[in-house]
Amino acid sequence: MTFARREYHERAARTRERMRERAIDVLVVTEPASMHYLTGYDGWSFYTPQGVVVAADGELLLFTRQMDANGARLTSWLGDEQILGFPEELVQQRDRHPMQWAGAELIRRGLAGGVVALEMDSYFLSPRAYEALCASLPGTRIVDSEELVGWVRAVKSPAELELMSRAARIMERVMRVAIDAVEPGVRQCDAVAAIMAAQASGTPEAGGDYPAIVPMLPTGVGTSAPHMTWSDAPFRAGEATVLELAACHRRYHCPLARTVFLGDPPAKLTTIAAVVEEGLEAALAAVRPGATCESVEAAWRALIGRHGLEKSSRIGYSVGLGYPPDWGEHTMSLRPGDTTPLEAGMAFHMILGMWMDDWGFELSETFRVTERGAECLCSVPRGLTVKR
Amino acid sequence: MTFARREYHERAARTRERMRERAIDVLVVTEPASMHYLTGYDGWSFYTPQGVVVAADGELLLFTRQMDANGARLTSWLGDEQILGFPEELVQQRDRHPMQWAGAELIRRGLAGGVVALEMDSYFLSPRAYEALCASLPGTRIVDSEELVGWVRAVKSPAELELMSRAARIMERVMRVAIDAVEPGVRQCDAVAAIMAAQASGTPEAGGDYPAIVPMLPTGVGTSAPHMTWSDAPFRAGEATVLELAACHRRYHCPLARTVFLGDPPAKLTTIAAVVEEGLEAALAAVRPGATCESVEAAWRALIGRHGLEKSSRIGYSVGLGYPPDWGEHTMSLRPGDTTPLEAGMAFHMILGMWMDDWGFELSETFRVTERGAECLCSVPRGLTVKR
Repeated sequence: MTFARREYHERAARTRERMRERAIDVLVVTEPASMHYLTGYDGWSFYTPQGVVVAADGELLLFTRQMDANGARLTSWLGDEQILGFPEELVQQRDRHPMQWAGAELIRRGLAGGVVALEMDSYFLSPRAYEALCASLPGTRIVDSEELVGWVRAVKSPAELELMSRAARIMERVMRVAIDAVEPGVRQCDAVAAIMAAQASGTPEAGGDYPAIVPMLPTGVGTSAPHMTWSDAPFRAGEATVLELAACHRRYHCPLARTVFLGDPPAKLTTIAAVVEEGLEAALAAVRPGATCESVEAAWRALIGRHGLEKSSRIGYSVGLGYPPDWGEHTMSLRPGDTTPLEAGMAFHMILGMWMDDWGFELSETFRVTERGAECLCSVPRGLTVKR
Repeated sequence: MTFARREYHERAARTRERMRERAIDVLVVTEPASMHYLTGYDGWSFYTPQGVVVAADGELLLFTRQMDANGARLTSWLGDEQILGFPEELVQQRDRHPMQWAGAELIRRGLAGGVVALEMDSYFLSPRAYEALCASLPGTRIVDSEELVGWVRAVKSPAELELMSRAARIMERVMRVAIDAVEPGVRQCDAVAAIMAAQASGTPEAGGDYPAIVPMLPTGVGTSAPHMTWSDAPFRAGEATVLELAACHRRYHCPLARTVFLGDPPAKLTTIAAVVEEGLEAALAAVRPGATCESVEAAWRALIGRHGLEKSSRIGYSVGLGYPPDWGEHTMSLRPGDTTPLEAGMAFHMILGMWMDDWGFELSETFRVTERGAECLCSVPRGLTVKR
């Protein structure tokens, strides 16, 4: 177990508290990160339907495909009687669905008939799964949990922050390896080989786990877009490469982005790099408990505006525990309109991506909120890395 | 572009043909692999809503987050006017959703009002996205596409099979590296570092892309469950490790599973390994155009039954193009009840996983169907690998 059993119980208690506030009788958690948060279960089984059932009272239940039940026994703190495997014959069939089985289980256990909340914007609850569950629970009111467990996860415990700090030590190594690997003539895939090896090996103290997103390393004209992965074409002199990477330790993430230029960078790139770095400092300086998410973005916006720049997309989001396809927690965003007040123990990936017509620049830091302000988890030089 | 433009046009034509057969006017494709199949678009942007719109007539349209539109321009064959970016302010908000915008676009382009098919069991169409789209398309009949593009993908072209064959060359190296890396005292994460580096580097001719699933390597009692990833604990003498891995080249997969034992294996393991290998041969021998998916499984079932063994889960599924979280195509399965006839050009991952109370064994092959029968893509010894 990654955490003391008491910590898992506290997580469930805080989840139930929020359920009570919203008069939710039963919560079905299908987001793998939230399932892991509540139970410790870890495995790549989220490609078939599964979930954790939290009732206002009573024990947690985890349901998954029959073949994955052993994995839940091995990795979660749940007792055997709390782990339910659905029959193999329900997997990927057109005329039946595992969620019909899950609905029947809820009824059998007296958990239907009230208000059941689902994670309606989860990757791992399809419309078909949703409709199958609704149809099997007549007389039950189905509501959107609105990322309920995501909000419980927003403030990290000391034990969670310690895991993120270990991920940060890995991340510092990963970025060093990545910057070393990007050289003219080197195939992108060979640089990724070095990056992924560093991500997995981690440090002697803390092994690496798989990040929720693979290395993203747009290069050349590709830097005009985020989220590009790689090819087997070589890096070229006279081009920039954005390295948006993460390290992960026991499912806890520390993402970091830097930009590298091979050769003499054009003035527009060095100029934007300086402005973005200044903007990052302004935004980080605005972080303190009680400040709102939007006020942090406003500090950035004001600074880059003075240099004639603007950015329409958010500059960060809550981060921590994650599974593919996203290390973001889908709760807080650093952007106008998000009036969530910051609290000590929250953690964010502040990602400043500037994507132009045919070029771009990225810089990011993962920070946690402390009583004294933002504390960046990594120590990696921030400026444009120029390799001549 | 990975394929000739003509091949993309043929894919769209075959998609429209199936749409006509089912009286579908507009298909909204949200599965990243199917989006890629139709357009060539490649990027890790599927964590926010996006889709490809196929109308019975007219050009394809791709919609994605505004910041990802450049990525679609760079990687797809679509013209600029076919790529639509939705505003950043719609991303991860509680009071609005990108699919409302998508619905309005369909109406504006005269694509609403008829029969619109959605991929109702897609990971990347949430119930909230589905409801937002439905609500924004009054008077439109929404139906389940039932993996329509997945079925178009079932028979691979020679160009696609060539990519899978290159992935197989990578896979042979990856398995060699993996078997070498599993040694008593070696941390699991360090073995994964070697595996992932081999996956990414690929061969001198073909670089590696990221597989849809990270390395799975249950070890010790963990072999009683599939889908276990890794920790930083060391491998131990006297224990088995299952290596279920894949290589990927330009999004095309070749998965392969083998089992390694460190030391002298117990008799139950060597016995099951021999039976499973014999069962694999029997199942492969049953493969020929016109044979059904279930008949292949029946050959396996009959053979292991003679040795007193049974397996409740399917023994394989269609494989090829894939994105996380699954390299399986969610169409054909090798199991009772699947009466799909095999055709030359189909490809399957035949995975024989035997999960017992506290131990297990896995063996797999990726094969394609040819006029002469099954042709395995990799050449890797099949028996239990014993390292003394």
